[in-house]
Amino acid sequence: MIVTEKDTKFVYAFEEGQKEMVDLLGGKGSNLAEMTRLGLPVPSGFTISTQACLNYLKNNKLDSELILQIEKKAEELEIKTNKKFNDLVSPLLVSVRSGAKFSMPGMMDTVLNLGMNDVTVETIAKITGNSAFAYDSYRRFIQMFSDVVKEVDRQLFEQELTYYKEKQGYQYDTQMKERDWKIITQLYKEIYANEVNEQFPQEPEKQLLESIEAVFKSWNNPRAKTYRRMHAISDDLGTAVTVQEMVFGNTGMKSGTGVAFTRNPSNGKQGLFGEFLINAQGEDVVAGIRTPQDISQLAKIMPEAYQKFTDLAALLEAHYHDMQDIEFTIEEGQLFILQTRNGKRTPRAAIEIAIDLVEEGVISKEEALKRLTPQMLEQLLHPTFVAKELAQHEVFAQGLPASPGSASGKVYFTAEAAKKANQAGEKTVLLRKETSPEDIEGMAISEAIVTAHGGMTSHAAVVARGMGTCCVVGCEKLQIEEGSKKATVAGHTIEEGTVISVDGSTGCIYMGEIAKEKPTDESTALGKIVSWSKEIGTIKVMANAETEKEIAEAFQLGAEGMGLVRTEHMFFGEKRIVEMRKMILSPDPTAKKAALMNLKTFQKEDFKVIYRLAKEKSATIRLLDPPLHEFIPVGKEVAKMATILGISEAEVNQRIANLAENNPMLGHRGCRLAITNPEIYEMQVAAIMEAAIEVTEELGNESVIQPEIMIPLVSIEKEIVFIKEKLEKIISNTFIEKGKEIPYLIGTMLETPRACLIADKISKHVDFISFGTNDLTQLTFGFSRDDIGKFVNDYERQQIIESDPFQHLDKDGVGKLLKIAINSVKENESSDVSIGICGEVGGDPQSIEFLLNEGIQYVSCSPYRIPAALLTIAKLNIS
Amino acid sequence: MIVTEKDTKFVYAFEEGQKEMVDLLGGKGSNLAEMTRLGLPVPSGFTISTQACLNYLKNNKLDSELILQIEKKAEELEIKTNKKFNDLVSPLLVSVRSGAKFSMPGMMDTVLNLGMNDVTVETIAKITGNSAFAYDSYRRFIQMFSDVVKEVDRQLFEQELTYYKEKQGYQYDTQMKERDWKIITQLYKEIYANEVNEQFPQEPEKQLLESIEAVFKSWNNPRAKTYRRMHAISDDLGTAVTVQEMVFGNTGMKSGTGVAFTRNPSNGKQGLFGEFLINAQGEDVVAGIRTPQDISQLAKIMPEAYQKFTDLAALLEAHYHDMQDIEFTIEEGQLFILQTRNGKRTPRAAIEIAIDLVEEGVISKEEALKRLTPQMLEQLLHPTFVAKELAQHEVFAQGLPASPGSASGKVYFTAEAAKKANQAGEKTVLLRKETSPEDIEGMAISEAIVTAHGGMTSHAAVVARGMGTCCVVGCEKLQIEEGSKKATVAGHTIEEGTVISVDGSTGCIYMGEIAKEKPTDESTALGKIVSWSKEIGTIKVMANAETEKEIAEAFQLGAEGMGLVRTEHMFFGEKRIVEMRKMILSPDPTAKKAALMNLKTFQKEDFKVIYRLAKEKSATIRLLDPPLHEFIPVGKEVAKMATILGISEAEVNQRIANLAENNPMLGHRGCRLAITNPEIYEMQVAAIMEAAIEVTEELGNESVIQPEIMIPLVSIEKEIVFIKEKLEKIISNTFIEKGKEIPYLIGTMLETPRACLIADKISKHVDFISFGTNDLTQLTFGFSRDDIGKFVNDYERQQIIESDPFQHLDKDGVGKLLKIAINSVKENESSDVSIGICGEVGGDPQSIEFLLNEGIQYVSCSPYRIPAALLTIAKLNIS
Repeated sequence: MIVTEKDTKFVYAFEEGQKEMVDLLGGKGSNLAEMTRLGLPVPSGFTISTQACLNYLKNNKLDSELILQIEKKAEELEIKTNKKFNDLVSPLLVSVRSGAKFSMPGMMDTVLNLGMNDVTVETIAKITGNSAFAYDSYRRFIQMFSDVVKEVDRQLFEQELTYYKEKQGYQYDTQMKERDWKIITQLYKEIYANEVNEQFPQEPEKQLLESIEAVFKSWNNPRAKTYRRMHAISDDLGTAVTVQEMVFGNTGMKSGTGVAFTRNPSNGKQGLFGEFLINAQGEDVVAGIRTPQDISQLAKIMPEAYQKFTDLAALLEAHYHDMQDIEFTIEEGQLFILQTRNGKRTPRAAIEIAIDLVEEGVISKEEALKRLTPQMLEQLLHPTFVAKELAQHEVFAQGLPASPGSASGKVYFTAEAAKKANQAGEKTVLLRKETSPEDIEGMAISEAIVTAHGGMTSHAAVVARGMGTCCVVGCEKLQIEEGSKKATVAGHTIEEGTVISVDGSTGCIYMGEIAKEKPTDESTALGKIVSWSKEIGTIKVMANAETEKEIAEAFQLGAEGMGLVRTEHMFFGEKRIVEMRKMILSPDPTAKKAALMNLKTFQKEDFKVIYRLAKEKSATIRLLDPPLHEFIPVGKEVAKMATILGISEAEVNQRIANLAENNPMLGHRGCRLAITNPEIYEMQVAAIMEAAIEVTEELGNESVIQPEIMIPLVSIEKEIVFIKEKLEKIISNTFIEKGKEIPYLIGTMLETPRACLIADKISKHVDFISFGTNDLTQLTFGFSRDDIGKFVNDYERQQIIESDPFQHLDKDGVGKLLKIAINSVKENESSDVSIGICGEVGGDPQSIEFLLNEGIQYVSCSPYRIPAALLTIAKLNIS
Repeated sequence: MIVTEKDTKFVYAFEEGQKEMVDLLGGKGSNLAEMTRLGLPVPSGFTISTQACLNYLKNNKLDSELILQIEKKAEELEIKTNKKFNDLVSPLLVSVRSGAKFSMPGMMDTVLNLGMNDVTVETIAKITGNSAFAYDSYRRFIQMFSDVVKEVDRQLFEQELTYYKEKQGYQYDTQMKERDWKIITQLYKEIYANEVNEQFPQEPEKQLLESIEAVFKSWNNPRAKTYRRMHAISDDLGTAVTVQEMVFGNTGMKSGTGVAFTRNPSNGKQGLFGEFLINAQGEDVVAGIRTPQDISQLAKIMPEAYQKFTDLAALLEAHYHDMQDIEFTIEEGQLFILQTRNGKRTPRAAIEIAIDLVEEGVISKEEALKRLTPQMLEQLLHPTFVAKELAQHEVFAQGLPASPGSASGKVYFTAEAAKKANQAGEKTVLLRKETSPEDIEGMAISEAIVTAHGGMTSHAAVVARGMGTCCVVGCEKLQIEEGSKKATVAGHTIEEGTVISVDGSTGCIYMGEIAKEKPTDESTALGKIVSWSKEIGTIKVMANAETEKEIAEAFQLGAEGMGLVRTEHMFFGEKRIVEMRKMILSPDPTAKKAALMNLKTFQKEDFKVIYRLAKEKSATIRLLDPPLHEFIPVGKEVAKMATILGISEAEVNQRIANLAENNPMLGHRGCRLAITNPEIYEMQVAAIMEAAIEVTEELGNESVIQPEIMIPLVSIEKEIVFIKEKLEKIISNTFIEKGKEIPYLIGTMLETPRACLIADKISKHVDFISFGTNDLTQLTFGFSRDDIGKFVNDYERQQIIESDPFQHLDKDGVGKLLKIAINSVKENESSDVSIGICGEVGGDPQSIEFLLNEGIQYVSCSPYRIPAALLTIAKLNIS
């Protein structure tokens, strides 16, 4: 290693640093230096660099050069403070604190009151005229030093003190007198001697070096390591150590200590927000034994100090361009700033503060967006349980957090029962083994949906996210007996009508109702973030939405258009499903055809609603995707259907049996339906084109609708060729019938591995391609999202998978297929096919970076995920 | 297009060609040229090139340059034969025949007796002194010309003749006199005039050019196209046309015609094999109207001609290094060779002949293998009727054994009916008076073909042998009534749908279905081919086999070892399934464990059987693959199981319900079982290792068993890491318990798309990888093999897919994944992982070339496919 000046200078006085030196001096050290540089009243001190820490951790001892530098800076500190270690008149006491580059609150060690010994304690008692304070300070030092430096169990000290107070009949520390603290100090020194086998060290220099060494070591204590792993902080950074003159807030009624935020960290409102305690040290505030006063009260008690603090707080916020969390101490009327840092805040406050700072001209829009996370926006859109209430409820089951939100209601085991209860005014929670398209109405009216099986892209999860309804899936421990209308889990029995509460952000389920708080009116704030994100982002965000309500919401939340309009849900209305079943089950071709024509009428009206909302914006309509057996009647419906069809129940059952499949996921669905039954897609496309032409005429000169037709589940080039030819014939017939032509696009979904592998060939025949990552993930892994619940918990427990591939794109597998597909399409230079994604991961911030890098041109996701997706894209462009 | 000499010379006299010019002159033309060159008695003639045909097909007319060349060669022919078109003394008659590069028997058109007209017919009558012959020849020419050139329905002529004969009370053509043929000729000319709206053309030159044109056109007739598709012959080759002086086998009792093979085309035995008809033309033999005599009879009737033919046949076989199929005509005692070609033969004959030619020193082993196809070996392994069963069935009809094999099926009387039944899943037997080229598709799909008429070289016989389809011809006692869809023979009535059994090796036909068994002793011939193939082939062929019988068979058929030993089938024995069900369903952990230990005992015995057979050869054992619900009880078994488990039936049903899956193919199976229930694989591996050690000890110093353990359905790197660690612990425990260590290999299957995409990562942890193309194909397409039936017929009908991807590897999709996987594994230079394939396509000759090119190191397939796979690999190495 080449020795440079930097390598040989290990210790920096506060005056020598600045905030940019955070790598070397840590967060705390560089901030103290910065504040010193700004002329703030910061107790003097110096910082030992992270470099020194790393050297120490490598060699396991303090370098002699380092010791020399520490001693030199300690001497300078004595001069600056006009105090001296061991001095009989003006003794120097210091704190020794850790301070890494990234804040790791409470994870590493701190020693306060260093410099105390049997002589100094008396001097301090004399100077302050407060002997109890002096001995209390000394015993605190002994306890911390023993714990941090010598690893003596702190419980030994606590027990001794508790025992002593009991003996004396004291309830609080404040009842302890000078004599009591003296006795305690003596007892503490005895514990030290017993445990460490030496007398408590009296030399401040020895105390200092040993404390510094201990703080260095604490970089590698287990809880620090865990914290770093959890927060993705590198183990190679090391911590700096700050040595700073002690100031005391507990010297009497003219002293005090407090913490204040420059803005409200809960809602972001402007104005100081914080609290303080008179005659107290910082740890007393934290311990919560005495209830602190609101910071505004300080104006009355110490107007001068308050005014000074207010000014300094403003100065600091302006300097750091962000809301500050400031620790201060007042020693005998004199204000000291001990620490400042960017304040932690709620998502809501984060957004408000970011917006306010932009509007105050403090930061740019880009900077504001950088400070926000997609999770903040998601939280903003859903109610949450009141924290206090939540603490009083036991989690009795947990599943996958499929769609965020917090909801309570009465449990129902079928969609019909839920619907009925809802019509009777009940709030319902739909509890199912798994949901299917027939459940759609029961889902729509429920407050929350819970399923025992299925993963993050199961039917329940996808639909719930689309609706913005709170949903927990794959709650495998729930034993649901739909027949007897009950569910059991871990000894609890839930019957129809039992009230439960569901947290869709954590997957936790609670018994009983829990109070909720709604985010108030967030539209202004959210609207601003969405609009700034759209200004800055590089690719479009579309919505997966099909109902009028969803589409309207999607546009309000920032969608550029609809990237996936599913048509299958449109067939489940009461009248429609009968026509659908006629079409599928009738033995009479004429009746089949009539049913198809009736369906066309319904579909056309659906599409007109969509086009009136979307106008010239994209609305990509996917043709029928699920297998026909999803639409067949069950139970009593069979007999009803037999009557309608005029055939026997047995024949209906026979026809239903013929439709059954072993692996529906790999079965007769998607474009395969169009090879065997071209009339279905032909009907849909005729309905689309007629609707588009009619709405175009309604709109006059305002907009021309350009239908986008998407063919699902292609895996063979000739599938798309065959279907496209048939559809184009229908389209040109419609143009002739209507006497009007409009532009249109035909595209396809890439959702089988084979489609990705031959994407270059497929793309020659289409105007756009859209990756359907839900099915693609199922096929790439060979995981059925409906069945994954049987083993996914074990997979997570054994860390076989790091994250659910239906939630976060599997880059190694599915991602590689996307890459192969996109590259092959782009190699064809004449191709101007647009490339998007409409699977669930399209709305997942973790996945969007990968998608952007690979050249995806738009993402489409459920409406409620749009703001987060927009923010993610904007932030990627900024960085 | 650049005009070269080749491009401008379109017509070649026989003297100008040779056999190497087959591309240009077709098979027939080049062979006639070759025979002419060899000095054989070939009627003179010339050939118009395939190039001329292609030009014609492009421009839709005969080129003027071509017409000039034809006229010139026709003049030369007149000089050579000393005959002239229209000559009043010595008129020239010619045949016009198609002749493509690859033989397409009967698929294209032929015109005989060209040159006949109202004048020539009289001259011929005079010369031959046989007026009946002359008019018969003329009417034949009118009929053929009308059919071939003018597309007049030949039935019109047949009906006229039949009607006339009935009126006269004749039964056979031979009863027709001069006057009768004159009347018929007149009637035929009238039909022509009516249908074509012009008089029958009298100018031989016009007859010739129009016939040539018609033969060119016939390249693209539907049956020729079908034949080419079935035999993978390119549509771009075109046909040559040969114009040759007519010689007549039907001028009287000193004339005749015949066809003979130089060896027996049915079993390959040496010696002339064929038949002839006195006073007949070639088409009489082929059409099967008269039943011909055995060629050996010719020695008695015309000893001189017979001797000459025998000599020429030997000469031709020696010249062509292969068995010849020779057509000859004797005109008034003079022998002419009309055609020679490599004879079609049964697979069995092909193999015998190839082996004999090697042993006679005529060809090399490589040449012998080149002449064999994988299909031939597969045919050789075709089943025969179980002797005992056969003895219980009465022969109700017998014909000529035209093509070996044993088959049963439902009778159909037309090719279309058979085709329809086949599409509905029926096994069919096609029963016809005689077959014609239009029947080709119905023949191709039938299990067996039976004709009432015709001989060993009739259309039915030749085509069936080519296809390797079981065939009996000339079963004259069969009274077939195609119209009323029935046949009668000796009191039996066979209706459409009646099941019969056909033995193509004996010519016997039986009522009902007869059980079949695989042939045992093809060992000599097959053994030689297998052993030559192994000498020449580059990669190993292993077997997918698990029972003792299968494994023994596999070794006999040439397997190097077992590439896939499935373990799941081993759990279905009566006692075993009970233990399996206990393990799966018992609520009592102790009972579960006891069941597992019992299963281990069974498994260990299974593995010992395998190792005793395989010894030091590979036996790759795949750990449990299917989902557990495949083993659960159904129906009455549930109650039985409840008693055994000591729990209620309802509880058993509940436990079964918990195991149910929506998409079992994508469910909880393969290595996923080992993450949730490691004990199962651990049990299996302990059983494997104990069995291997015990058999190693049994064998003494003979062999050391090296177990190969294969983990199925991996898609994530950590799956293999997790499972391998667990299994290696079991293995080392077993070594300690047994006090003996043996080598072992751990490998995995790549059968999900993701496994292929991360093959480099997976391969780091294993000794071998084996592609499971069955599951991989399902996942790549998203096709469930169990459900594909719902749409695959439409896919084939609409030509969306060219071939079943489960039968022939899908190169574009699945093949691309293989390529990606293999390349990524090989990029890791330190890797010595061996790479194989054990899916169905591993035994498919069409797929093996691709697999070899991609670097697969072994294939594994069902035992009966091994010889074909070995041959394929050897042939690839030769070429």
